Parts: sequence; C-alpha cells; structure tokens
Amino acid sequence: MQTSFTVPAPGREQSIDCSRARRAYPTLERSAYFNYGAAGPLSVNALDAICRAYGFLANCGPFSIEANLWVEEEVAVTRSLLEAELDAPAGTIAFADSICAACNIVLWGIEWLAGDHIVISASENAGVAAAVQTVAERFSLKVSQVAVSRCTIEDPISQIARVLRPETRLVILSHILQPTGEAMPIAQIRQLCRSQQGSGPMLLVDGAQAAGAVPVSLQSLDPDFYAFTGSKWLCGPGGLAGLHIRSDRLELLRPSSVGWRNLLAERTGMAGLYAGARRFDIGVSAYPLYTGLRAAIELHARAADIGERTRRMLEMTRYFRRGLLTLSRQIPIRFIPDDTECGTASGIVSFAIGGCRPAELVQFLEARQILIREIDDPQCARVCIHYLTTAEEIDHLVEAIDAFLVRRRI
Amino acid sequence: MQTSFTVPAPGREQSIDCSRARRAYPTLERSAYFNYGAAGPLSVNALDAICRAYGFLANCGPFSIEANLWVEEEVAVTRSLLEAELDAPAGTIAFADSICAACNIVLWGIEWLAGDHIVISASENAGVAAAVQTVAERFSLKVSQVAVSRCTIEDPISQIARVLRPETRLVILSHILQPTGEAMPIAQIRQLCRSQQGSGPMLLVDGAQAAGAVPVSLQSLDPDFYAFTGSKWLCGPGGLAGLHIRSDRLELLRPSSVGWRNLLAERTGMAGLYAGARRFDIGVSAYPLYTGLRAAIELHARAADIGERTRRMLEMTRYFRRGLLTLSRQIPIRFIPDDTECGTASGIVSFAIGGCRPAELVQFLEARQILIREIDDPQCARVCIHYLTTAEEIDHLVEAIDAFLVRRRI
Repeated sequence: MQTSFTVPAPGREQSIDCSRARRAYPTLERSAYFNYGAAGPLSVNALDAICRAYGFLANCGPFSIEANLWVEEEVAVTRSLLEAELDAPAGTIAFADSICAACNIVLWGIEWLAGDHIVISASENAGVAAAVQTVAERFSLKVSQVAVSRCTIEDPISQIARVLRPETRLVILSHILQPTGEAMPIAQIRQLCRSQQGSGPMLLVDGAQAAGAVPVSLQSLDPDFYAFTGSKWLCGPGGLAGLHIRSDRLELLRPSSVGWRNLLAERTGMAGLYAGARRFDIGVSAYPLYTGLRAAIELHARAADIGERTRRMLEMTRYFRRGLLTLSRQIPIRFIPDDTECGTASGIVSFAIGGCRPAELVQFLEARQILIREIDDPQCARVCIHYLTTAEEIDHLVEAIDAFLVRRRI
Repeated sequence: MQTSFTVPAPGREQSIDCSRARRAYPTLERSAYFNYGAAGPLSVNALDAICRAYGFLANCGPFSIEANLWVEEEVAVTRSLLEAELDAPAGTIAFADSICAACNIVLWGIEWLAGDHIVISASENAGVAAAVQTVAERFSLKVSQVAVSRCTIEDPISQIARVLRPETRLVILSHILQPTGEAMPIAQIRQLCRSQQGSGPMLLVDGAQAAGAVPVSLQSLDPDFYAFTGSKWLCGPGGLAGLHIRSDRLELLRPSSVGWRNLLAERTGMAGLYAGARRFDIGVSAYPLYTGLRAAIELHARAADIGERTRRMLEMTRYFRRGLLTLSRQIPIRFIPDDTECGTASGIVSFAIGGCRPAELVQFLEARQILIREIDDPQCARVCIHYLTTAEEIDHLVEAIDAFLVRRRI
C-alpha cells in the first residue's frame, strides 16, 4: 500500500545520539516507554519552559499590558512554528485542547442540512466517533462507518468509494490508524472526494499518530481539515492541540464555540472576529503550554531532522517486529493486521497473544516499568516506537513478553 | 439594592495576616496588583503543585495505568472541592477552559427552535455576548440586550421583566457585573423567570466576578446554570473554569462538543456518556492545572474563611473609595456607577477621569508597577480589590493617581 508521506533517503552521514537526547526525558530514565501514541513524555526542557513562562507571568503580573503582549506573541509564534512544522500556509492553524475538540470545530462548523451524510472510518478514535454521533443526532444526519484496516479489507479507497453519496458532506479518516499504525492513502482519498459530483465531500484527517512521528506536508496532502496534537509524538504538554483549516474553507466554516479570544476587540461582536484560523481558536488559556510545546519541538529539531527521526523510528520498529517474530515461532503471537508489508509505515506495532487478554500483559509489563497499552477494537496490545526508543529498551520489552508467556504457560 | 450573597457577621476574633498570606504570591512582591477580575496571580503553592504534578507524570509515565488512575482521581477530587466551595450538589459541575467555553456548553446544548428568544444583559463579557450572537445566527434566534447597571437604569428586575416573552428560553446575567462590580439580584430574577408562563426561561449566571470573591451558595441561588473560573479571584491557573448545571437540567441539556473524556469506556458511543455533569466536560487535558487550582483554593482556606475574606475585601474597597473621594474633591473623578450605595457589594471599583482616556492612566500606572485595567463600555478604569490587597498598596495607587493628575495638569 502506498503511504501518504515520504521519508527522504539518507543524505550525508547523520546519526541520532539517542542516549544524549533521551537524558532530557525523566520518564525515559525510569521506564521503557512505548505509549507515545497516547501521550508523549515531557522533557525537562519543556517543563522548564512552562515553569519559566509561569515565572514571567508572576513577574509582570498575569494581567498587564506587558503580559497581554507576551500572550499575543506566544500564541502567534507557536502558531507559526506549527505551520512550519506541518508545512501549512500561514494563518491556517487554530488551537484546541485536544484532537476531539479540534474535530468538533469542523463538526459544529458545517452548516448541515437534515439528511446530510458523514463517512467515518471504523478505526477512528472513540471520542471522535462519539462526536460524530452527537452531531448526527442533533442535525439528523446519516453516518456510514467504513472498515479501512487490512485486518478486514484489502483496499480502503474502494471501501470509501462504495459508500459515498451525493449527500456525503464529510469524510473522516486518520492519517495513521491509531489501533494498528497503518498509513492511509490520504492523497488518493482526497482525489476521490474531489472527483465526486458537485464540490464533493470535504475531508477531515485525524493526524494524531502522524504529526511529530512522520514528515507531514499539509500543502502537499491538501486535506480540507487536519487535526493534530502536540501531546503525543511531539512530546508537548497535554492540553494543546490544533486544527489546520485549508485557506478556502476558512470563510466557509462557521465559528461555533466563540469567545473573547476570537474577538478583534471587545464589543465588536461577530463582525469583529479575527481573520484566518484564529477565529476558530478554542483553547487553551494556559499560555505556558504554548511555550512548553515550542520547547518540545525545538528539542526534537536539535536531535535530528524529521526525515532522520522517522528513519530511525522505522528501523527500531522493524527491530521490534523481528524480536517478536523470533518469539512467535513457538507461541501464538499475531500481528494486527497480520501483514508485515503494511505494518512498517509507522512506529505503531499492534499484536494479540492467543489465549490471553491484552490487559493482563499490560499490567504484567507495567509492574516491570515497561509501559504499553491495550486497544479495545481490535482487541490487542499496542507498542509505540519513537525515534527516542533504543534497541536496549526493545530487548527489555521482548524479554519481558517472553517472561510473561512463560509465567502464563502459553 | 439587595445583593445576592450574604456576608456573615464577624464571629470570634479573626483577622487575616495579610503580609504572611501575600508572601506566597510573587506578583504581589513586585507589583501593586489590582487585576483580580481579569486574572488572579499564581501562588508559589499553586505553581509548585503544578510542577509536582508534572513530575509525578514524568515519574510514572504520562500514559500508564498508574497515571490514568491519578488523572481520574485528580479530576474527581477537584470537582468535589469546587462543588463544596460553591455549595453545589455533587456531580453538577463540568470543566471547561474558560467562562466563554462554559457558557457555550449551555448555548450549544439547548435544543433551539427558530424564533426562540435570548435575553442578555448589556454588561456581560464581550466574549459571552459574541457567543450568544453566534448561536443566534446559527439557529435563527432573537436576542434582546438589556441594560442592568445603575449607570443607566434604576432596577434591573423590571428591565428584564419588560423584555421577557413566551418564546424567551434563556436569560444571561452576571452575578457581579464585570465592568462596574454591581451585584445583581439573582434570586429575584430566578423567581421572575419561574413565574413566567409554562416552565419559564432558564437562567445562566456568569459568576466570573463572584466565585472566590464573595460567598456563593448555588443551592440557595439555584440558577439553572452557573459559569465560573478558577483563574480570577481564586488565583488558580488560567485554563480551568467550570459550569454548574442544576440536577434537573442535566438530562435536558444536550452534549455538544463531545470527546473521549465524556465516554464511560471506549467504543460505547452516545449511550455510554458519563452520568452527571461529567458528560459535559470539555477541558482541560493539562491535568496539573487541576492540582494547581486545588492548591490555590487551599491557600485561601488557610488564610481565612470566605466570609472573613469578603469582609476584608469590602473594607479595603471602602478604604480605596474614600481615598479616591478625597482626591476627587478637587478634580473630576467620577465613580461608575456614580452611586456609593451600590458600589460596595464587591471589590470592583470603576471610575472615569474627566478629560483623559483610561488607557493613559493604565499605562502611567503600569510604568510604576501598579496594575489596573481599562474597560471599554462604559469607558472607565477598573480597580479590583482582593482580600490580599493591603492599605499600603491602596495608598500607593491613590498617590500614583494623584501624581498622574498633576502630570496631566487635570
């Protein structure tokens, strides 16, 4: 399957000094950490930046001309950095608390007509699926849930094509599927949407498992909307996520959860909402988080560029898959999906162990300071490999899985 | 005018050791701070609590069984503390980023019919007013803006009564008006709403300038909805606010911005939203902020109970008004509203100086590390007096205002 991002070929000799980079993350000193897809660990750099920002606000007074100028600048600089990071045009990223909140900007921003149709993949985050269900009930919309994972189907493009109708207004799909790590062919699905009658449905991409993990170029992917968070693969603080809104959709989408942060000036009302994505900003008022996210991103940039980071992540992922495969010669470990080819597009490795609930394994490992998580659908254990992950950490995980199998007499 | 809260009479000898309490706030060491109504200063206790919480998450890994149990507990304990603080029944407070976000839970949660009518006071926060305008445009609602301040009218109750119609579904009013500090007769306005035909309009109270400043009993006030924030008079971190939803409204109000945090378990969909106000939670994912807010509240509780804190705040407010009055014998300072009786229900003192823009005064004072703010409508300077405010701080402010008048040859 074609992936939706390009990892540049290695250029001049460049290797990541991981042991040095890892020292900035207290979590990595204490645990073998494999839950980047849920929440990235905070670095001391990011934490110091957050504390320094609080210190600054305490110094100049949390509400003052100086503090307000600083807040304005923090938000603007962070917006620009994220736009650069995701190769998005200036003024197209709005801030939200989380991926779900970002998706809600779209879901409550479209002027729905009763009977309009939404297509959502069956591999989306449960919160996003619940948000879709909520908006569908409110505005009497139809929803089709479509399997897109190789666990059950061959080709996501034809699956989505089959359910599109003239009334389809929105298609929701992850860039990288959170349960299985499969990369979706976003560019082709965007083409499919545009080739429909009329203007075709809009495409909302959930980039939760892509942003910070693999190179993302929104100019090239060109979806209508792209939700992402700083709190997973980018290792920023929880509570700061974003939504890219394609320039031509900025005027089409209607603001929903409006407040003072969207107003050009007090008492200007709707006519006075900011231009650009800023009119859609819904969070967050904890401004030190912006400072923290920038520090997180800058730390990655100092380690290596995103191409090199992704290469290392994929190399380590292959190393883990090989390790698990060695074990699975004797015991019933099954990759999900059971397809080695498509399981190499991200750092996510999901697997099931015959005869045992994933929760048992997760608990067994956490007691040994090895952190992975379970996924409900499909039921499996999920391991996230980051560029920060070392071979030693993986060896430790593989040995612990082996010990678990022995203990459980599997 | 009757106020909507009761300050208990002084009991046994109890006085607040302000100089000791103030030492916890770095801002107060550096500035004469009078912007509590915009953003309260963070204490070292709250900041340490935030940093310790981040440290804990780094220790156990930001996503782990241990961290997830901790997050669950942090949110639950903070919800209970706020319910106790505001005398609200258990399970009736939802979390949001800000007052505006909290109001949007109500505005997007009512099943509007085209032609439904909203009454909003003319003294509400500009962000809340813009939120109302947004929802009115989307659902074809009518909006009446009503003057409630003594700046222009005698009696807010009769003003609101005049615009109520059978189609009025919602009345929005602040507990304490943010531009002028006037306390509104919430209980009587609630009675007015209930006495209307049918079930009568619901009442959404903006408690931004009340929570943490004066005793608030939601059981006794009994509004349908009450928005508040931890970031102003309670001196908690920015980004953590809340909405009280009266128990009988919990089932009536529909969730809008839904996400994973509202789901009982993954993949349970709408049927599986949490019971109680938690189904309306929209923020915040920066869990250390909950820890920080609790530390902020505990610090106030250690200084004195809310009754004593309010008494001191009102005493200091009278002291400032007297100081300003002394000056204004010679020069054109005008209190807003110009009514000494109604200007003593809160710590907010607003005033205008003839022949000068408030921004000039704000800048002049900030250059001397005295922080107040300007208000656009009515155009005035706003000073917020907290129980933490000292007579020395007020003397310093009054002297600086005098110096400004001399400099400006007013």
